[in-house]
Amino acid sequence: MSAKHFINDPTLLVNSALRSLTYTNPSLALDPANKIVYRRPSYAPRQVSIVSGGGAGHEPSFAAMVGHGMLSAAVSGTIFASPSSEQIRTGVQSRVDTSRGVLVTVMNYTGDVLNFGVAVEKARAAGIDVEMVVVADDVGVGREKGGKVGRRGIAGTVLVHKISGALAALGRPLSEVAKVARLTAENLVSVGASLEHVHVPGRSLTDSAQEKLALGEVELGMGIHNEPGSGRAKVELPELVNRMLAQLLDPNDRDRHFLHVNSNEVVLLVNNLGGVSVLELAGITTEVVEQLEKTWKIRPVRIISGTFMTSLNGLGFSITLLNVVNTDIGGPGMIELLDAPCEATGWSAPVPKKTWEEKNKAERTDTVDANKPIKESGLKWDTQTATAALTKGLERLISAEPEITKYDTVVGDGDCGIGLKRGAEGTLSSKVPFLESKWRAKFTNFEV
Amino acid sequence: MSAKHFINDPTLLVNSALRSLTYTNPSLALDPANKIVYRRPSYAPRQVSIVSGGGAGHEPSFAAMVGHGMLSAAVSGTIFASPSSEQIRTGVQSRVDTSRGVLVTVMNYTGDVLNFGVAVEKARAAGIDVEMVVVADDVGVGREKGGKVGRRGIAGTVLVHKISGALAALGRPLSEVAKVARLTAENLVSVGASLEHVHVPGRSLTDSAQEKLALGEVELGMGIHNEPGSGRAKVELPELVNRMLAQLLDPNDRDRHFLHVNSNEVVLLVNNLGGVSVLELAGITTEVVEQLEKTWKIRPVRIISGTFMTSLNGLGFSITLLNVVNTDIGGPGMIELLDAPCEATGWSAPVPKKTWEEKNKAERTDTVDANKPIKESGLKWDTQTATAALTKGLERLISAEPEITKYDTVVGDGDCGIGLKRGAEGTLSSKVPFLESKWRAKFTNFEV
Repeated sequence: MSAKHFINDPTLLVNSALRSLTYTNPSLALDPANKIVYRRPSYAPRQVSIVSGGGAGHEPSFAAMVGHGMLSAAVSGTIFASPSSEQIRTGVQSRVDTSRGVLVTVMNYTGDVLNFGVAVEKARAAGIDVEMVVVADDVGVGREKGGKVGRRGIAGTVLVHKISGALAALGRPLSEVAKVARLTAENLVSVGASLEHVHVPGRSLTDSAQEKLALGEVELGMGIHNEPGSGRAKVELPELVNRMLAQLLDPNDRDRHFLHVNSNEVVLLVNNLGGVSVLELAGITTEVVEQLEKTWKIRPVRIISGTFMTSLNGLGFSITLLNVVNTDIGGPGMIELLDAPCEATGWSAPVPKKTWEEKNKAERTDTVDANKPIKESGLKWDTQTATAALTKGLERLISAEPEITKYDTVVGDGDCGIGLKRGAEGTLSSKVPFLESKWRAKFTNFEV
Repeated sequence: MSAKHFINDPTLLVNSALRSLTYTNPSLALDPANKIVYRRPSYAPRQVSIVSGGGAGHEPSFAAMVGHGMLSAAVSGTIFASPSSEQIRTGVQSRVDTSRGVLVTVMNYTGDVLNFGVAVEKARAAGIDVEMVVVADDVGVGREKGGKVGRRGIAGTVLVHKISGALAALGRPLSEVAKVARLTAENLVSVGASLEHVHVPGRSLTDSAQEKLALGEVELGMGIHNEPGSGRAKVELPELVNRMLAQLLDPNDRDRHFLHVNSNEVVLLVNNLGGVSVLELAGITTEVVEQLEKTWKIRPVRIISGTFMTSLNGLGFSITLLNVVNTDIGGPGMIELLDAPCEATGWSAPVPKKTWEEKNKAERTDTVDANKPIKESGLKWDTQTATAALTKGLERLISAEPEITKYDTVVGDGDCGIGLKRGAEGTLSSKVPFLESKWRAKFTNFEV
């Protein structure tokens, strides 16, 4: 990915980014010394508090996930580096309401588990009721390679935050909030894929020992800190998605089959690692949805596509599946908690339960003929003359393409010549008399 | 920007991306032949319909802005190319409810204005009550250069959609919806800046006549189709933002002072052109907010930061200011319409009116000493021996940095060696006896 940045100093970048949350969501405050974004006391009712965090560079996780219905506080490290246990301890003990207990949710990375773990032990020693849940949803690391360290945590973590956050906001006790968070974490599988390593602001521009990916090559299973994946290949999107879904779902892959996805309710999250265009992420989402249905007979009850857990502006995406199970707490289920309203700027899923569940497929298929309602002008045409004149004009237009392209490249986006040429060729090849051809529609199909 | 894409065929990409909207928001339908995303009739009550669109590549604008409280339909062209007038005419006449009239909102590009204009004329000839509003918020093109063509439309357009969409959803008549849309458009100024040109999928990889930007160089005013801006410079973010705000606000800049921003209520939108990391956009947002207050004494009543109008995965951002004025329709004001709920997946602004207006600044500043609540273990130490052993260990750790870095570059993200070295150096330089130094906190401040 590009090594160009608007802010090159990583310390300034992280501090300044965290501060923005207090501007875009006035219910949040910042403890700059400890890099903690937390709900201001007046916006944080007595409820189980949820604290999460990790290295920076994964935004909107975690600071922008703080807000009503999601996290109570997020503790940030520097880019791709865990916060210290002292920062986290301050977050758990002093930046959230501890009266009903605290759930600490962390992704499975050595530094994070170590530092959050130490902080949790200290908070417990101080008499606070704390539960800790570790999320390890990434099947990119199989059983053999993962060994005792286990799988990494990636985008599925956001679903744990949303579901446990909604339950905590309902006033439920810590035992239930932690139980449902754990149940969610246990029923998640994710896998990523990237076209490039990401450049970390402030680091040397020379290449690391990691070999660059070639054009057209994709790395399956690359982690959110540039960690190596399971392999590289030159594959088109359909084959890539096919392999990713197999890693998530294939029961015959003994190294990677961590979860039997068999629920009647499955949630799909397609996550942008930060640098994929919104257009392309949407195209990827369609490929995933259609293969899930065709190959695996899975029709998710919720399909969420967006930017939730990034690797800076990584040119990659991840697919997460949540196998919805009974929470068994005599209360709201996972889907209801996922649908619940939330005031975190990093969470975006505005489609309500009713729309998801109505299964209404009504369409508008009428077409009104373009010329039908327009009054005849009474104008007379000599078809032969008009066709001859138009043909000559179109031919000249085609031959002028290089020059038009040249000038449009200087003053515009360089597509005017090609657009005109294609329109002219299309009109010439339509082989219908001038008056009946729809040249106007084709001819105007360009932006200057 | 990187020329790597997961989907390289632009036709497949656009069609597939549009289809994803029917998956991520089931209230929407797709007319694939005409590239129209529209609200299914069962979800589209009788109200003024709003139709917009333009070239693809600007997602989530415009297709993902379709939904309750925003657009009724969006018509897409191919990448950076306007849809044809026939596509648009079908959208206006046959894909939305026309009974209460239709507002067509379009950005000021020649192709778009031409094609949307023809479609509007045809729909009017067919007896439909249609109003058209053209948005031209970009001050990147000054008066002299803009000439008769005028300014381009960029991210401010999204605010026109949100405000007019919320008013239409309230059942207000076309005259009012069009009036407020126009009033919003007239009170907008925007300007962008980019570090690179964006690569369009399917186009040649060789460079165009447009000269590449050097490392550290930024182009002020670059358009959302790679159009040239007002100039290039090697400037840091503070100076860049300073120049951008001057272009938006300086009354002495005769070429660019299009709007006197003097309202008590100003809305700020910081928009990601698609390829800036969420972390960095947040840092940029802070810089903009703080300079607005310091230099221009403007404290926006709403600060929205996110990805709304892209140039594919363009490595740039834009700043938009809306000068809120009285809508004079005896009804809701612009801010109320901006805050109104909305079910478009492309719009994200979850913070409610109450939070924006309470101006509550309560913080939690308590700090609980790390060691205070922990019971003494009673363990005895020989400080001298411990210090000697630790010092030797830390020195060895520092000398092992190159080797640790080498291996972590292979299996991790390459920062483990540096992290350990810095921790060791910090501990050695702390010059306090072992037991009192906070080496644990420093020592664990890394991710493996």
